[in-house]
Amino acid sequence: MEISMNILLTSAGRRGYLVEFFKKALGGNGLVHAGNSSPVSPAFYYADRHVVTPLIYDDDYIPFLKRYCKENDIKLIVSLFDVDLMVLAKHREEFAAQGVTVVVSAPEVIDICNDKWNTYVFCRDNGFNVPATYRSLEDVKKALADGTINYPVMIKPRWGMGSIAVFEADNEQELDVFAEKVRRDIFNSYLKYESAVDEASCVLFQEKLCGQEYGLDVIHDLNGTQKLTVVRKKLAMRSGETDCASVVRYPEVEETGTRLGEALGHIGNLDMDVFVVDKVPYVLELNARFGGGYPFSHFAGVDLPKAIVKWIDGEDASEELTIKQYDRIAQKDIRLIDITFDGRD
Amino acid sequence: MEISMNILLTSAGRRGYLVEFFKKALGGNGLVHAGNSSPVSPAFYYADRHVVTPLIYDDDYIPFLKRYCKENDIKLIVSLFDVDLMVLAKHREEFAAQGVTVVVSAPEVIDICNDKWNTYVFCRDNGFNVPATYRSLEDVKKALADGTINYPVMIKPRWGMGSIAVFEADNEQELDVFAEKVRRDIFNSYLKYESAVDEASCVLFQEKLCGQEYGLDVIHDLNGTQKLTVVRKKLAMRSGETDCASVVRYPEVEETGTRLGEALGHIGNLDMDVFVVDKVPYVLELNARFGGGYPFSHFAGVDLPKAIVKWIDGEDASEELTIKQYDRIAQKDIRLIDITFDGRD
Repeated sequence: MEISMNILLTSAGRRGYLVEFFKKALGGNGLVHAGNSSPVSPAFYYADRHVVTPLIYDDDYIPFLKRYCKENDIKLIVSLFDVDLMVLAKHREEFAAQGVTVVVSAPEVIDICNDKWNTYVFCRDNGFNVPATYRSLEDVKKALADGTINYPVMIKPRWGMGSIAVFEADNEQELDVFAEKVRRDIFNSYLKYESAVDEASCVLFQEKLCGQEYGLDVIHDLNGTQKLTVVRKKLAMRSGETDCASVVRYPEVEETGTRLGEALGHIGNLDMDVFVVDKVPYVLELNARFGGGYPFSHFAGVDLPKAIVKWIDGEDASEELTIKQYDRIAQKDIRLIDITFDGRD
Repeated sequence: MEISMNILLTSAGRRGYLVEFFKKALGGNGLVHAGNSSPVSPAFYYADRHVVTPLIYDDDYIPFLKRYCKENDIKLIVSLFDVDLMVLAKHREEFAAQGVTVVVSAPEVIDICNDKWNTYVFCRDNGFNVPATYRSLEDVKKALADGTINYPVMIKPRWGMGSIAVFEADNEQELDVFAEKVRRDIFNSYLKYESAVDEASCVLFQEKLCGQEYGLDVIHDLNGTQKLTVVRKKLAMRSGETDCASVVRYPEVEETGTRLGEALGHIGNLDMDVFVVDKVPYVLELNARFGGGYPFSHFAGVDLPKAIVKWIDGEDASEELTIKQYDRIAQKDIRLIDITFDGRD
């Protein structure tokens, strides 16, 4: 018998489909609430309830969420945004104390994922292949000069998201100019908040990998035990998110994901980018949450939202964590929804 | 009584919603075919029939389409891609001779829209406000030096699409680097085909306008007579396409669109970008086709696909060209569809 449970998705933004997946997972036994700091949030359209929260960096953000959970009998929080993950990770014990499970990893794990320099160091030190990465112009120029790497070089924010402020340099002049530009873009955007940790080296320089890109969902249960690794072949990208993909059988890549997840010890989903160059998998990025590629795994028959609901209820979720169809090509398609904010909440 | 009619949408690509709009417009009295040179085309998913065509620049492209129209009793062709428009425009008489209406403007009109330098000259010479635009580094540097314009300067392909290879320079060093980069990006992409017309000046330099952006549908009937101008306030962009917008009343902007359409004399839809700076409308871009913003007009109650079908049938379409609701905010949302190509055609 299913227990009724209300769920809050924070930083829900554009992820209307996840609201739908969680609603379906509850099957009417509870409500799905969507939270976001902006009232213009497509996810609100799908949610049973929605709430405009304070900004993540606002002092009242966590107190607000705790009050909201009490008032609305929320039992489960799932966050969909990197910056939000860290704030929630640091306070997950307080939520647990009032009976709310936050599906989030430890702050140390979030830090390894959000900080792309830490991602690089973690992967390298744990024996995974990674593109050569540098934190300063001097270091990358030295590596170029001594032939360790060649152009093109990717220049990106160390704490970055999607394709924001990512440039590709084909020569030294571009390298100099883009390094300065990425830095300026960071401090003209909300990326400046996370970058404040280390302003002097908030720009990364990375060897460009040329190969086929894969997206992985490395799925752990709420105790961090490995359950399933899904491998998606990326067929088209748009704004830094997977636009067209196919779930495939690729044991070597799957094994890389599973092994990395075990080294990392995350909770729930780990979205992972892997490039395969000459049959060798390289780890590029980690996000300790549902990523933009998750719907492709869902499309292939995986149902992590349902598994999470079952785990909370103490049930087994093997069926939900089984891939039902491989090699179908799925594409994100466009439809319009009315998101006029009429102040209902 | 409605006449049965089959419709072919060429270069249908991602525009599944337009296939749906045309199917609804036919109401079962005919089939909607979607054509594209790539078999991995989301629009195929929605179409009654689909066909993988030769590449637009292939010698067999037009003969192929003419054969296809005969074999499938196609009466109407609507193209959704700039490069395709020009090829079809040059051959529209041949299609007309075999009883097929191609909803496309004259080649001269397509040229004014596709070539952003011609857009600039056309608008300027017809008394519309335009951002200062230059075809060479020398000219833009002179304009910067004598204070005609200031940084930032936008650098973009003269024959460009969406946000491909568009950069913003904040100083002279960036200007030099991006000028070279845009040129290289053009010749490493399919933009090189149109750019072959004038390789020496295929990069444009444009004053950056800071203001609110609007998207317009300037709608003419199949004889080029003005019927309706829709003004959309753009609230969010993604990959160079409108992601969130609202149809608004804005007489000054509407009048700009209507007047420009009359000067241009296009057929069907003209998608137009306008920036309003200090209450003055500036014309930025023109596309003589359904643009990525059209669904927002449709959402507001306009039904151009139905109007086109009615015009072909010799009927009045005033009702279809009436805006039914203003000021609702609509957002493009994501859903997944299965586009696995199983060789059905």
